[in-house]
Amino acid sequence: MDRRLYSLCGEDGKRHYSPHVWKIIMALNHKGLEYDLIPVSFADIPSVEDGSYSSVPVLRDGNTVLGESFDIARYLDETYADAPALFDGKGAVALTRFVESYCKTVLHPSLATIAVMDMHNLMSPADQVYFRSARERRFGMPLEVMAEGGEAERALLPEKLSPIRDLLATQDWLSGAMPAYADYTLFGTLQWCNVCAPNTLFEKDDLVSHWFERCLDLYDGVGRNPAQSDRH
Amino acid sequence: MDRRLYSLCGEDGKRHYSPHVWKIIMALNHKGLEYDLIPVSFADIPSVEDGSYSSVPVLRDGNTVLGESFDIARYLDETYADAPALFDGKGAVALTRFVESYCKTVLHPSLATIAVMDMHNLMSPADQVYFRSARERRFGMPLEVMAEGGEAERALLPEKLSPIRDLLATQDWLSGAMPAYADYTLFGTLQWCNVCAPNTLFEKDDLVSHWFERCLDLYDGVGRNPAQSDRH
Repeated sequence: MDRRLYSLCGEDGKRHYSPHVWKIIMALNHKGLEYDLIPVSFADIPSVEDGSYSSVPVLRDGNTVLGESFDIARYLDETYADAPALFDGKGAVALTRFVESYCKTVLHPSLATIAVMDMHNLMSPADQVYFRSARERRFGMPLEVMAEGGEAERALLPEKLSPIRDLLATQDWLSGAMPAYADYTLFGTLQWCNVCAPNTLFEKDDLVSHWFERCLDLYDGVGRNPAQSDRH
Repeated sequence: MDRRLYSLCGEDGKRHYSPHVWKIIMALNHKGLEYDLIPVSFADIPSVEDGSYSSVPVLRDGNTVLGESFDIARYLDETYADAPALFDGKGAVALTRFVESYCKTVLHPSLATIAVMDMHNLMSPADQVYFRSARERRFGMPLEVMAEGGEAERALLPEKLSPIRDLLATQDWLSGAMPAYADYTLFGTLQWCNVCAPNTLFEKDDLVSHWFERCLDLYDGVGRNPAQSDRH
């Protein structure tokens, strides 16, 4: 079966840096589903599939094509109901959205500042032009000025992660005894920054860091090498 | 059946102000279980039931006595499995703990500062002495100095509630289509401050404020008048 996940990638064809694509890389592995990981640039997105998508992930699954990471995760759980669940019950769907809201409102703005220049530097020249223009319009300042806030944001990160740290003091995974989509939601968010600027996110001996390493170890270490799960 | 919930209460015998007790007031109503709400002061806690408890809530349910709000909620769901679920699936248990960790690490320190003098002022004179001594030892400053930080904390509160606001833009309750223990966890936390200092928590027309009002309306408005659900 034709199963393809389109993924924003650095110029080297290896550094997959979209947080939302990472959620689905982990979700597909959780489900035990094989897939082709298709690296794309910003410039490629308008010609992905039927041309109606403005962002990734986009997943083709046989004759079904869909975008939006949360919608894809729910689709995978409904379509492959016999494989391990991404959402353990209806309550988990609603509350995983809270993890997503936390990532979006608390972490994304920090990480966007921390990673901005490293993210820029791994792109192709054409994507660098697009990225710079879009970010500078959105934030009203040059990338380099935005990046000056990175150190301050990095210093605030341990505090922003305190609800996660508190939770991980009593259970190994956000989702309880085993990882599930809530874990992949936070993992994808942090993996974005980890891919762009490795080994700079955490203090040593932070419970969040230990959990992140456990996530990187899942599924034969797909978090360390996403290409290894490709079909060949 | 003898079902009693011990609840920290102001000198007036009406203002129940423990966030953790409020979680269980809502949980008992959710389950449709009748109970006697027993007002206690700090000074009473050492003589509650067998004298082994140092905090409330404490619930006597027939021959079972237990403390710790989360443990009580799980006990109620297991014991009264035919009544509406407080946790819709195993995943919801794990993720409701994340809501609890968020309340504990992000909101509690703010609310403790915002409400400190109002909380002090509703207590009996003996409890005021105990409360002042315990807080001043913990925070290393007079209550009045601590309270000076209240306005600054109040100004930060809308930002601290941004993950909740983001979530409520797409669903009516933290738990999805219907309220459950995740909602009561946040409600209890905010109700603590609302009981001590009514109508000071939210900006008007905030989605979080609308959700809080919906919580207050639940179960014949028990959030506005907890005594009305007592057995008479």
